[in-house]
Order: sequence, then C-alpha cells, then structure tokens
Amino acid sequence: MARRTYTCPLRWSDMDAFGHVNNVNFLRYLEQARIDFTLSGAGKTTQRTFPEVSVVARHEVDYLRPLVYRAEPVTVETWLTDLGEKSFTVAYEIKDTPGVAGAGNTVYARAATVMVPYDLSEARPRRLTAEERAVLTDYLEDQPVAV
Amino acid sequence: MARRTYTCPLRWSDMDAFGHVNNVNFLRYLEQARIDFTLSGAGKTTQRTFPEVSVVARHEVDYLRPLVYRAEPVTVETWLTDLGEKSFTVAYEIKDTPGVAGAGNTVYARAATVMVPYDLSEARPRRLTAEERAVLTDYLEDQPVAV
Amino acid sequence: MARRTYTCPLRWSDMDAFGHVNNVNFLRYLEQARIDFTLSGAGKTTQRTFPEVSVVARHEVDYLRPLVYRAEPVTVETWLTDLGEKSFTVAYEIKDTPGVAGAGNTVYARAATVMVPYDLSEARPRRLTAEERAVLTDYLEDQPVAV
Amino acid sequence: MARRTYTCPLRWSDMDAFGHVNNVNFLRYLEQARIDFTLSGAGKTTQRTFPEVSVVARHEVDYLRPLVYRAEPVTVETWLTDLGEKSFTVAYEIKDTPGVAGAGNTVYARAATVMVPYDLSEARPRRLTAEERAVLTDYLEDQPVAV
Repeated sequence: MARRTYTCPLRWSDMDAFGHVNNVNFLRYLEQARIDFTLSGAGKTTQRTFPEVSVVARHEVDYLRPLVYRAEPVTVETWLTDLGEKSFTVAYEIKDTPGVAGAGNTVYARAATVMVPYDLSEARPRRLTAEERAVLTDYLEDQPVAV
Repeated sequence: MARRTYTCPLRWSDMDAFGHVNNVNFLRYLEQARIDFTLSGAGKTTQRTFPEVSVVARHEVDYLRPLVYRAEPVTVETWLTDLGEKSFTVAYEIKDTPGVAGAGNTVYARAATVMVPYDLSEARPRRLTAEERAVLTDYLEDQPVAV
Repeated sequence: MARRTYTCPLRWSDMDAFGHVNNVNFLRYLEQARIDFTLSGAGKTTQRTFPEVSVVARHEVDYLRPLVYRAEPVTVETWLTDLGEKSFTVAYEIKDTPGVAGAGNTVYARAATVMVPYDLSEARPRRLTAEERAVLTDYLEDQPVAV
Repeated sequence: MARRTYTCPLRWSDMDAFGHVNNVNFLRYLEQARIDFTLSGAGKTTQRTFPEVSVVARHEVDYLRPLVYRAEPVTVETWLTDLGEKSFTVAYEIKDTPGVAGAGNTVYARAATVMVPYDLSEARPRRLTAEERAVLTDYLEDQPVAV
C-alpha cells in the first residue's frame, strides 16, 4: 500500500478575477497528477503500465481553503479507493508541500475521480489488463472516498 | 418553478490531445452558465439579485458522452436542488441545443455545485439575503441532485 | 476583396487577477476567428477550402485598450495581407460589435499571424493548393500589416 | 549584463487537438517567466524592484519547432532589449533545459514583449522609477530584438 505524491507547480494565470486559484484549475492539478502517474509507470516497472489512455467518468471535488498563486508548488497526493474490472477511482489531496519554506500544512482540496480505460482506436471503454491491475493494486486503500 | 438555459459556445481549444473537449473544460461551461445567471439577475428584477460573488464549495460531475468541438453551441440547463441559509446547490445538464441544425438530443454531462455566498472585502462566507433567497426560490426543484 | 467578421463571445475566465481579459487570451480570440474561417470554408464554396491544418509561424499583437468581461461579444475582423506559396498572413482587429447595446467602437487589439499549411501525416509544411489560393485571394488586401 | 533563466514545467493540457503544445500556451510560458522575474525582485535586492504591475503593449513571437508535452521542463531565457522611460522590452528564448536527461539544445521559440508599468489604482500607465531602471539595466543587451 502506497501513495504517490506529485509536486505541482502553480501558474500565475491559474488565478481568476477574484485573485484566487480558480476552482476549475484545481482539476488541472488533478489531471497533471494523473499524467505524472501514467508516464512514470506506476513506479514498479519501467514500462508504462498505468492505463495510458483513460477517460474521466466522474469527478467529485471538495474545496476546503482558498489558494493564492505563489512560487512554491503544492503537493497532490494520490491513491486508489476502488479498482474494478472496467474502472478505478483515484482519490487526491491537494496540500502544502512539506519542507518548502513558508509552507504550512494546509489541505486545499480533496477529490475523487472515476477513470475508465479507453481504447482510442475503437473509441470505446475497455477492461483493465491483468498487468495494469497488478500495478494499481499497490495504491489501493480500504478507506472510503475522502469526499 | 423554472429552469434557466444558457447557450454555451464551444472553443476549438477546449479540446485536448485526444480530440475531445477536455473534462476540465466542462467546468468552464458550468462556470459560464453561473455567470450568465448572475449577470442577468435571476430574471425577475433588473437588479443583480443572484449573489454576485459566490465561491464553489463542491463539484460533482458525471460525464456521459464525449463532446467534440463544433460551431454549434451546447445548452447548459440550470436549476437549484438545495437552498440553505449559507449555501445553495446548482444542478446542470450540458446537452445539445434544440432546433440547432445537426443537433440531436444528447446529454453530455450532469453536474451539481454547492455554492457559498462570499464577502470579498471580509474574505469570508456570508448568509444569503432575503432578497437573494426570494429570487433563487423560483429555480428550486424537489428532485434530488441529478448526479 | 472582402473581410470576414467573427462574433466572438467572451468568457468570464478570460480575465486574470487584475480584472482584465488577459493578454494571452486575446490570442484565443484570434485562434477562434481562424477556426471560424476554416470551418466555414472561405465563404465561396461549401467545401472546406481554407487550409484545414495550418500552423502558426509568427504572431504580432498590439494591445490598444484594456478589455473587461461582459456578456456582449467582441468582433474579430480578419483579412489577408500576404499570400505566398507556402505561407499566408492573416491580419485582425478585435473591436466592439456594431449595433450591440452598450457597445462603442473601441478597437482593443490589432494583430497579424503568419500561417503555414501543414501536412499532419507527413509532419511537415506543405504548399498551398491552387484551389486554396483562389479562395484566399478574395481576402487579400494591399495594405501593409496593421501592426 | 546578465540573462535570467526560468525553468518552465509543461502541462499535458498545454497540447491541443493536433498533439502539440498550442501556440497560445507558449505565451503562458513567457508570462510565467515574467512573473518569476517579478517575484524574485531582479536578483539584486530582496525587494521587488521589477515593476510589480506591468501590462503587455505588444508581443512578437516566432515559432521555430513544434513542442510536445514531456515531463522535462523547458527553459525560458529572458533579457531586455530596450529600456525607456515608460516602457521596456523583454526578449525570450524558449529552449531545452541543458543537462536534463533526454534534452537536446532545440530552440522552440523566440519572442519579445513591450511592457508598460501600470498604476492599477489610477488605471493608467506610469513611468519607471529610478530604482526600477537601475535593476533592469543589468539585463539590458545591445542586441536587436531577436525576432
């Protein structure tokens, strides 16, 4: 059982006219954390065993604290809360990066995404392979979805 | 009891490298539908009685069909499913615009957002005013959140 | 000789933390005007004779007035200032839409883009076809690039 | 005389439907490099002596090579090519980051931006202060604008 941590740089343009990181851009951070998960394989092998193309079937996001642009990155912690035949659920926490100067331990958002592996050439959902499931199992936690 | 409909133009750049409107950009459509709601008042008065500054406390989005860029807009239908003292819940359907050439009646996504009126100068949540509640009541439906 | 006009809806999220439409998003308006040009053919035929895939080789943009989000669209006027064998230059004005309530006749930006027709399957630039040139000629003006 | 280098992380969502980083998002990289310049002061003092609020008056961008998303950042090198009383011109090169595994020495784009210091409370341009000019002078090069 393990969690992944993605160090996520902010962009000044993530803020909206209210001077906060816009709620929609939090989902960019989630996306980028999933991309990091994908391209790194799942840490176990050098192959890309995380489903390379998956589509989002559902998002849930709870916004806990406002976030203002700063040079210091946030951390997106990710793990799995469900692992089915044709879908899996990624849970996340977006929070301060420990050890970064000036960072506290604020959690800005919690979220969960139901992902469906997708076959681009056939343009339809597909099952997870055994190899994909084996890798993903390492990140599966019993805890209910955090949101 | 009423629903609002916002005619939502797409942008080619809403698509990602997979050639579909990216899941994150669906939340831009929801945001823009709320902005349209806000700036039009709530249709009852000429005043802007919809809380002008509200922050998003929670999103739920179910993605039902892939959407590809096209010149024809989609429609975002909005209504309320909850109206509390300090928050309210907007429900949405993103779907084809009836009567537009080439449009079917596909529903692309259903979503719900918990909104909290916010006092920017005090930087904290505030209660809905009686006037705001009166306007919002017109859009309140008994139905459970669609997602 | 003709100019095209694209009616361009704004999004609230086009604004940045300073409360103005961010300079980068002006280029989204230019892009969307080019997309409109492309997908409409060039107005002469029902075929898509404007090069369907072209890449941007160069942008020049002059920002003349700040633009704040509003429900009313802006107009992007487009024409050609150069038409070569392997490239062409699109000129633009982003301005108020005549006849829209509350709109003046402000010009917000002038810009020019050098476009290069691109062969995606070969991953390299290509020449304009005779048919493409014939359509584009209608939009060619003698005037030097506006910026 | 000095140049600044900003290490610029890409996002997967910077790519468009053609599978390349979209031309518009290159300007996000330029913006973020300017933000990094601003927030770091100009390296000479601990104060923020770079004009904290400046508006973009003009962009020129030459796109030299297509860029595809990758985990490795690009580098945005910045310097000044003009320093006037009421404006200054930032020049940039977007290129591979030396020493990063798998990186070559490709230059993806060259650009220049005319910036105008701006007084947000008065909503109008203002002159550079002597202190600002002193800091910016360090980055001024004789070379003509690269684009």
